[in-house]
Amino acid sequence: MSTVEELKAKVADLEKKLANALQRPAPNRGKIAEMSSEVVDSNPYSRLMALKRMGIVDNYERIRDFTVAVVGVGGVGSVTAEMLTRCGIGKLLLFDYDKVELANMNRLFYQPHQAGMSKVEAAERTLREINPDVEFEVYNYNITTTDNFDHFQSRIKQGALKGGGPVDLVLSCVDNFEARMAINMACNECGQKWFESGVSENAVTGHIQFLIPGETACFACAPPLVVASKVDEKTLKRDGVCAASLPTTMGIVAGFLVQNTLKYLLGFGDVSYYLGYNAMQDFFPQMALKPNPQCDDLNCQKRQAEFQASEAARPKEEKVVVEEEIVHADNEWAIEVVSETTAEELAAAEGDQPELAKGLRVAYTTPAPKQDGDQDGTVQDGGQSLDDLMKQMQSL
Amino acid sequence: MSTVEELKAKVADLEKKLANALQRPAPNRGKIAEMSSEVVDSNPYSRLMALKRMGIVDNYERIRDFTVAVVGVGGVGSVTAEMLTRCGIGKLLLFDYDKVELANMNRLFYQPHQAGMSKVEAAERTLREINPDVEFEVYNYNITTTDNFDHFQSRIKQGALKGGGPVDLVLSCVDNFEARMAINMACNECGQKWFESGVSENAVTGHIQFLIPGETACFACAPPLVVASKVDEKTLKRDGVCAASLPTTMGIVAGFLVQNTLKYLLGFGDVSYYLGYNAMQDFFPQMALKPNPQCDDLNCQKRQAEFQASEAARPKEEKVVVEEEIVHADNEWAIEVVSETTAEELAAAEGDQPELAKGLRVAYTTPAPKQDGDQDGTVQDGGQSLDDLMKQMQSL
Repeated sequence: MSTVEELKAKVADLEKKLANALQRPAPNRGKIAEMSSEVVDSNPYSRLMALKRMGIVDNYERIRDFTVAVVGVGGVGSVTAEMLTRCGIGKLLLFDYDKVELANMNRLFYQPHQAGMSKVEAAERTLREINPDVEFEVYNYNITTTDNFDHFQSRIKQGALKGGGPVDLVLSCVDNFEARMAINMACNECGQKWFESGVSENAVTGHIQFLIPGETACFACAPPLVVASKVDEKTLKRDGVCAASLPTTMGIVAGFLVQNTLKYLLGFGDVSYYLGYNAMQDFFPQMALKPNPQCDDLNCQKRQAEFQASEAARPKEEKVVVEEEIVHADNEWAIEVVSETTAEELAAAEGDQPELAKGLRVAYTTPAPKQDGDQDGTVQDGGQSLDDLMKQMQSL
Repeated sequence: MSTVEELKAKVADLEKKLANALQRPAPNRGKIAEMSSEVVDSNPYSRLMALKRMGIVDNYERIRDFTVAVVGVGGVGSVTAEMLTRCGIGKLLLFDYDKVELANMNRLFYQPHQAGMSKVEAAERTLREINPDVEFEVYNYNITTTDNFDHFQSRIKQGALKGGGPVDLVLSCVDNFEARMAINMACNECGQKWFESGVSENAVTGHIQFLIPGETACFACAPPLVVASKVDEKTLKRDGVCAASLPTTMGIVAGFLVQNTLKYLLGFGDVSYYLGYNAMQDFFPQMALKPNPQCDDLNCQKRQAEFQASEAARPKEEKVVVEEEIVHADNEWAIEVVSETTAEELAAAEGDQPELAKGLRVAYTTPAPKQDGDQDGTVQDGGQSLDDLMKQMQSL
């Protein structure tokens, strides 16, 4: 039988072991005060700082000055946030109201042990472990309700890392029409540049689009462009219960989104206005879109007037490229085509049509105005109710 | 002072708490015997099985029958393995001899707490957590040494999930010329289809290429094609100590690689023979390449003879597309151009040149044969030593 002394020693030993076992793992690395180019295995920034030596980026360290808001941290947004975190972005704001589910495991980023956690909380934990140098501000709410919208907009206006100014860029990674319109409204009001992104319900097409209020088309200027696939899309529209998704398509769209974000923030290469991806044929349509002078969003019209005034005041050679492209006289939507246009793409659709780059189609079309002889009350073949249109756009 | 009974109770309590604290976390989910289309939050395959309802894939469940070997699990290979794991691939074979370092944290997948672990071990642990339904076979060795090469080739020949036959596909995600040549040699000998992938040292271009022994160019048939960037590449060649890398470019290349793997295995869309990516201009050159009848690899020549014999025996309308494209009479490398060729791309280079799709260039060129009047022993301007060529290819 054990003595009191032996038992006390055993208790002390067990307490020590338990304390060790319960200890949170030590931080994986300390914060790094300044990015270094030093080529050592322990430097997480050596391969990024090498972009300077390779002649790609003049001053990579600037990445730390920038703040980016990622709205929606699902299949595209979570990978977007991870890429920016690994690149050493200064600050990320994350917005989402969804929970992690096992049904999300067919896309990158979240892991099964996070099932049940809010997406923003799970994302923040993982991202802090990956790079403790990044600042995070996360909101577990739906940006489309009135109160949340006001708060969302105030964080866009004041969320920057230094000085409480506006963020440098907003990245839309949401999966529905209402949230895109909310981001559009918020960004048009404060002249905030943003990127829109999307993946189709059949998982084999996607796109990114750069929106500069007043300078390029806003999300309300024209029907959103989606990448055409040769697949019969009637199935898709009839049976929208569970959209398909692939980690490939979503990872590629996130890659395009962050690559163009880096090009914009760090000033290298050419930022794409619209870059599409058709996985079936490995086809990548590109376009630039001018704003619609009759846009329903009055803030878009205000930003257009401001942009035109500032352009008029600038010396001619400095004017931005998107303004210098050819405008088609019969182009009601004022969308400009950068690559080849095909008549076949347009023939199938109803109503007024923008001219489109090969491989793009509009998400919906406006019915043609009624003719005099067409007053008998029957439903027009090409006509779709706003409700129908909204449904089609649900998971655009 | 405590009594013996109190101390014993305390010991029992501590022992229980310690056992709990030391317990490995429970598996995140059990194995799933059969893939289901059921749309519930707890089904990790619902969004993949939806590809059937969307009309993209006839029989998604077949994914479980396939075995893929991923050679190199760095910036491209680790994301490739994760995508295939999340898609529910039957079995993965992973080969790498490197360790995880903090210097790898600027790319996706590995986390700081894994620093010091072998890449294949770290990858297997993470991937098993993500999807316990996938089988893994991992090798922590360099495939280019004689013994390892023989073992590597035997696993390619016998590593399949069922029946010990050959794997369905080999994906090269290595970062050096020697390893690519080893994979090429192994695959030519056993007629194994494989994809090559690569990212440039300046991090802004990349490519994937599908190699079908006898049917398309092998890696030894012609100088490898790389995507041209407008960046001054002299810097790159002088100072190759630390290559730059970006999570975006590597994630996009992994996405292209796995998307084309899925298209090939599950039979949807068109598999690309060569798909390039230029991040500076968002440009995607594509080509198809015929094998070189004078290829140095004798097994490539054997596979070419077999392929031609089997084509001759088939009804004309079934012949593969790559054989039906136009062959340029003056094209010594027998490379076929699918998209537009520009003379400017070729003008700068020395020696014999394949005709190339816009935006591609060869990784090196063979010096033109010496002219009669050129026997004075001076070094030719365009001549490069094999050593120089190898150096340029190091991290292709």
